[in-house]
Amino acid sequence: MANLPLILVVEDDQLVQSVVEDCLSEGGYEAVIASSGENAVELLDAAQGKYRAIVTDINFETGVIDGWDVARHAREIDPNFPVVYMSGKDADDWASKGVPNSIMLAKPFAPAQLVTAVSQLLNVGTPSA
Amino acid sequence: MANLPLILVVEDDQLVQSVVEDCLSEGGYEAVIASSGENAVELLDAAQGKYRAIVTDINFETGVIDGWDVARHAREIDPNFPVVYMSGKDADDWASKGVPNSIMLAKPFAPAQLVTAVSQLLNVGTPSA
Amino acid sequence: MANLPLILVVEDDQLVQSVVEDCLSEGGYEAVIASSGENAVELLDAAQGKYRAIVTDINFETGVIDGWDVARHAREIDPNFPVVYMSGKDADDWASKGVPNSIMLAKPFAPAQLVTAVSQLLNVGTPSA
Amino acid sequence: MANLPLILVVEDDQLVQSVVEDCLSEGGYEAVIASSGENAVELLDAAQGKYRAIVTDINFETGVIDGWDVARHAREIDPNFPVVYMSGKDADDWASKGVPNSIMLAKPFAPAQLVTAVSQLLNVGTPSA
Amino acid sequence: MANLPLILVVEDDQLVQSVVEDCLSEGGYEAVIASSGENAVELLDAAQGKYRAIVTDINFETGVIDGWDVARHAREIDPNFPVVYMSGKDADDWASKGVPNSIMLAKPFAPAQLVTAVSQLLNVGTPSA
Amino acid sequence: MANLPLILVVEDDQLVQSVVEDCLSEGGYEAVIASSGENAVELLDAAQGKYRAIVTDINFETGVIDGWDVARHAREIDPNFPVVYMSGKDADDWASKGVPNSIMLAKPFAPAQLVTAVSQLLNVGTPSA
Repeated sequence: MANLPLILVVEDDQLVQSVVEDCLSEGGYEAVIASSGENAVELLDAAQGKYRAIVTDINFETGVIDGWDVARHAREIDPNFPVVYMSGKDADDWASKGVPNSIMLAKPFAPAQLVTAVSQLLNVGTPSA
Repeated sequence: MANLPLILVVEDDQLVQSVVEDCLSEGGYEAVIASSGENAVELLDAAQGKYRAIVTDINFETGVIDGWDVARHAREIDPNFPVVYMSGKDADDWASKGVPNSIMLAKPFAPAQLVTAVSQLLNVGTPSA
Repeated sequence: MANLPLILVVEDDQLVQSVVEDCLSEGGYEAVIASSGENAVELLDAAQGKYRAIVTDINFETGVIDGWDVARHAREIDPNFPVVYMSGKDADDWASKGVPNSIMLAKPFAPAQLVTAVSQLLNVGTPSA
Repeated sequence: MANLPLILVVEDDQLVQSVVEDCLSEGGYEAVIASSGENAVELLDAAQGKYRAIVTDINFETGVIDGWDVARHAREIDPNFPVVYMSGKDADDWASKGVPNSIMLAKPFAPAQLVTAVSQLLNVGTPSA
Repeated sequence: MANLPLILVVEDDQLVQSVVEDCLSEGGYEAVIASSGENAVELLDAAQGKYRAIVTDINFETGVIDGWDVARHAREIDPNFPVVYMSGKDADDWASKGVPNSIMLAKPFAPAQLVTAVSQLLNVGTPSA
Repeated sequence: MANLPLILVVEDDQLVQSVVEDCLSEGGYEAVIASSGENAVELLDAAQGKYRAIVTDINFETGVIDGWDVARHAREIDPNFPVVYMSGKDADDWASKGVPNSIMLAKPFAPAQLVTAVSQLLNVGTPSA
């Protein structure tokens, strides 16, 4: 079990970045940071399945691709891709803009909520080749 | 139990319309038909909660609003609105374009699947005032 | 498969009784009617496991035992007993007065909702000796 | 919606065969009958995805392949294959011998339980190409 | 994410209080302690939505309001309120006395069970305004 | 809460043993190690309900009883026994060889996945006497 599961974290606020990174790291995950929707899409396109889940904020300072778009892009590549959204004011849009079988963490949330959310989504369903 | 639960069915193919109407009617539901996305949005905006669920095709001959849009609109009005999609070739897009807690019926489906889908969604969760 | 699964229906309105009986019968269940909470408790106490599920209204004309009480009594006898409530004005109390893993059918409901509710609850979980 | 979803029914009792066939047909499914485990495995191997679900008894008069084996074989071909077991005396073995995400119908069951079981399993999860 | 999610903990045993407080705090939650059912009801009535979940013991040394009552009261205020019960000898009563969509932790339980229970309940369902 | 919940861990690789032991211990569980399928079956037969869950690897250096067999044996003793599998190359066999309501952790997995998996399974369902 040398490699830790890689989680793609899409967040442009450095403070939140480091909180999320710490939470995931304490749970035994390794975070890779994308700081915009555009950056996340690039990493996903080049990933060839190396990320096990995505944790994404909704709005970013730069670019036009938001977190809702990033999740849809991830699901076009892999329809079972685990998706966790983090949001403050946009949490209520989850029911209309989120993808199926995703989790919305409404800020403020506890670190344990994030780690449980990622773990729940990874623990559900059939592993596939 | 004089009134039957009303289900908004969004479908422009008359043959499918009548099949869906018959299925729902046999299950004890009453279908109201919208024949385009635009028509569905109008009915939802005027509905004041009178529909209990939506059953929608994805692509329509006329108009620019597709079934994915209709479902998002329904969820903006009520974040718990039960949504069932019906589709042939677009079924695979459900994971990226569908709303959370919805059901995709891939054509061809059995009438019982449709009635069970609507009933499952109506039977889940807390009734609210 | 000579015997049909017996469902205990607790309802004092004769019109609703016969609607529920017909729905269940069409789904292949056999309904036994109790017309008050007191009557239901008696039947449950004497049942020795012969009922497979309970479908109960909330308020009854006679007696002091309501549908919430009946369901709790059924669960004291068997903690896994499938419970379906039917209600109009009391549906909102389900979240505070219902038992875990039960289903509330808010009136008006479609016959298919009732049959699906009973079937879903019977189809879940481990059969036990 | 010309074609009905095909369901592979594995059952050697002709009476139960016809009851199951009628139930599925009334729900809008078309049953294909295999009358032994060996027969079912042959049909699955030749199927190339044409069956949408399997409904299987546990013990058969002839052959050495039982219903538990048939279900495992179906899941080796497609890890998401919907599986419904029907059984009388073997229902209690489901927790140790059944496959994940399957449903056990303990006899006697109502026709509606069978149709709901198949429909529930078909309505869950992501459609895939 | 300056504020931590507040969890109302209803427990009169000081040792258990401090264990629960430590678990929740390690998961990133902040516990507010009520030491009787009466005290919990007062805090809930004055809360105006400030608690995100309740974790409650069943029996208290003082007062007549037990943990089952506290949970029902919380659900009358908010039908979606996340509820976790902790109990030793009363765990078996959960099926008849618990509220829907709650979790019972049978003592002895691991700290991770408590944190996962609270996180699971917070992570489920639609965030609402 | 003096006693910690005991988890039976079936694993013959000493490195993985100690990683799993540490994860569980950090979550507040106590691990008991079996180093072969044969050893696990012996411990389960003598256990009289003292283990609350099993966490098992699939293949062992010695003996003929693999992890799939161990889980089936545990479920014959208690049909509700919580089961977590850990595997690298055999993860894809879960859909055909796993027991219902179990979780497969595909290696490499994060410690938080293991603790969440055990906690989720313990937190579901009715406690029983």
